Amino acid sequence: MAEKKTLLSGIKPTGRPHIGNYFGAMRQFVEMQESYNSFYMIADYHALTSMQHPEELRASILNIAIDYLAIGLDPQKCVIFKQSDVPEHTELTWIFNCITTVSYLMRGHAYKDALAKNKDVDAGTFDYPMLMATDILLYSPDVVPVGADQKQHVEFARDTAEKFNRIYGNTFKLPEPLIHPDVGTIPGTDGQKMSKSYNNTIGLFAEKNEIEKAIMKIPTDSHGIDESKDKTSVLYVLHKLVSSPAVFQKIDHAYENGGMGYHDIKRMLVESMESFIMPFRERRGSIAADQKHVLTTLAEGGKKARAVAAPIMQGIREKIGVTLYPL
Amino acid sequence: MAEKKTLLSGIKPTGRPHIGNYFGAMRQFVEMQESYNSFYMIADYHALTSMQHPEELRASILNIAIDYLAIGLDPQKCVIFKQSDVPEHTELTWIFNCITTVSYLMRGHAYKDALAKNKDVDAGTFDYPMLMATDILLYSPDVVPVGADQKQHVEFARDTAEKFNRIYGNTFKLPEPLIHPDVGTIPGTDGQKMSKSYNNTIGLFAEKNEIEKAIMKIPTDSHGIDESKDKTSVLYVLHKLVSSPAVFQKIDHAYENGGMGYHDIKRMLVESMESFIMPFRERRGSIAADQKHVLTTLAEGGKKARAVAAPIMQGIREKIGVTLYPL
Repeated sequence: MAEKKTLLSGIKPTGRPHIGNYFGAMRQFVEMQESYNSFYMIADYHALTSMQHPEELRASILNIAIDYLAIGLDPQKCVIFKQSDVPEHTELTWIFNCITTVSYLMRGHAYKDALAKNKDVDAGTFDYPMLMATDILLYSPDVVPVGADQKQHVEFARDTAEKFNRIYGNTFKLPEPLIHPDVGTIPGTDGQKMSKSYNNTIGLFAEKNEIEKAIMKIPTDSHGIDESKDKTSVLYVLHKLVSSPAVFQKIDHAYENGGMGYHDIKRMLVESMESFIMPFRERRGSIAADQKHVLTTLAEGGKKARAVAAPIMQGIREKIGVTLYPL
Repeated sequence: MAEKKTLLSGIKPTGRPHIGNYFGAMRQFVEMQESYNSFYMIADYHALTSMQHPEELRASILNIAIDYLAIGLDPQKCVIFKQSDVPEHTELTWIFNCITTVSYLMRGHAYKDALAKNKDVDAGTFDYPMLMATDILLYSPDVVPVGADQKQHVEFARDTAEKFNRIYGNTFKLPEPLIHPDVGTIPGTDGQKMSKSYNNTIGLFAEKNEIEKAIMKIPTDSHGIDESKDKTSVLYVLHKLVSSPAVFQKIDHAYENGGMGYHDIKRMLVESMESFIMPFRERRGSIAADQKHVLTTLAEGGKKARAVAAPIMQGIREKIGVTLYPL
């Protein structure tokens, strides 16, 4: 039996996930835990650059842990942990800073985006790629799943690993980005890409009345019941994602040939969406009811992650020359 | 009895100390360990910005520990430790980065100096003031002894402490800089300020032949034996620092009234310097002979420092909101 490859992914605990997040990335995590030795890290120290309310951060960490357990990440199969439980991340970040130039960090997307908004950028956002590099390199992953727009993270990690290897001798394996398969753009309720910033999302754990409210307000064109309809429209695309084959066949037929009005199409989407979301929502409810279990899971994940990261960090300390005695 | 105030000082393990370092700062450390609850930190993670040869760094850390024990720092009276033994330093640095702007860090002296030399500055040098702020703030010192040109370090630490306190509630005590008493400039063998970069130093642990070589080459003016001489000259100032009162009285008389030539003045300075340096050198030799004891001292210092820094760091984690359970 071939040895499993290792995978790491970081999840920033900001905001509640929506079905766009699910189809774009989260679903793949659940699949990948079967075939990879997987680490899923809740990036609370990254979140500090944008979240400076302790109660909000604490709640976000807990919520994201519950979310990922609810969609099916299984602590028996993968390691779910939070970054701040592994202090080796920030220690290695400092070491990487010393072999990285300011001008190199200025190429970071997050920094450039913030500058473009004329923001007085914080040093955490500026140094973000180095913390991200340690997130990755401390676990020697073979692959890092990322969206097509996040390839730079892995490139920074690879560059930094190569630089370190060149100065101090071969230490880090170079990880490969694993680009999420293109699932197409998941449209939000206004037709734009589904995104928190457009306020057009359908929550992955939404209640039925929220689902109903979101879907019923989706704008439609003026095509009548008997007319054929636009297959690039939001309602059609969402039906395709969440409806059963039998329901989708009816919808597809109506879009092709007419015979169904938007009100009915929406009502059927509400039912399909509810059938899709309900199991997640119910599972989430029962997981959330046992908070102690979630915290134990996270704490144990932290220990497992640290057991991997600590010896790697000790090897790094030896290579850079700060070890004089065993600690 | 009033409680002792706390003091922290960082020592960068680069190069060998000379008598200019001794009179400018090291001597005060030895005095201050009596009256302060003192932490002396060997800043090996700061040294990484300029030293990327592991064997050299390891040797420098060990040497600086021996140096400080040799001049009289007493591990029974103060805590001598190396920065890398307390990972809380780099962890807090990340947190400080998230509340600090890039434009603020651009005001750092070390960064500006490096830029002025057209260097492609490393991110460690850029972020240096934040690591320095954690060095200071993790030990809640009342005072931080610094040279007049290093006041900015304490200012950065104070600014950062204030910023953190404002966002997360009162946490850090604001330390005060304790400016080293002005001992005047210690001249090097060429008349400029004694400094490694001018290659004009007399090593604090120099052998007699090295002392002799350094002093005999000090340039003098053409004043003859019978003439009075310039009291601002190197030979006079060094005599004043290291000669016994009896010897110095003779020298002073000769500078005032003539009666002694430069050759004799130099010979007497060699003897005075040797009397001054010999006890340090011999003490250093016997300490260096028991390397195991030095390493044990450092390791124990690290544990003592960590015992102070760890609960402070835990309080910080709680304030920023990354704690969900006791670790």
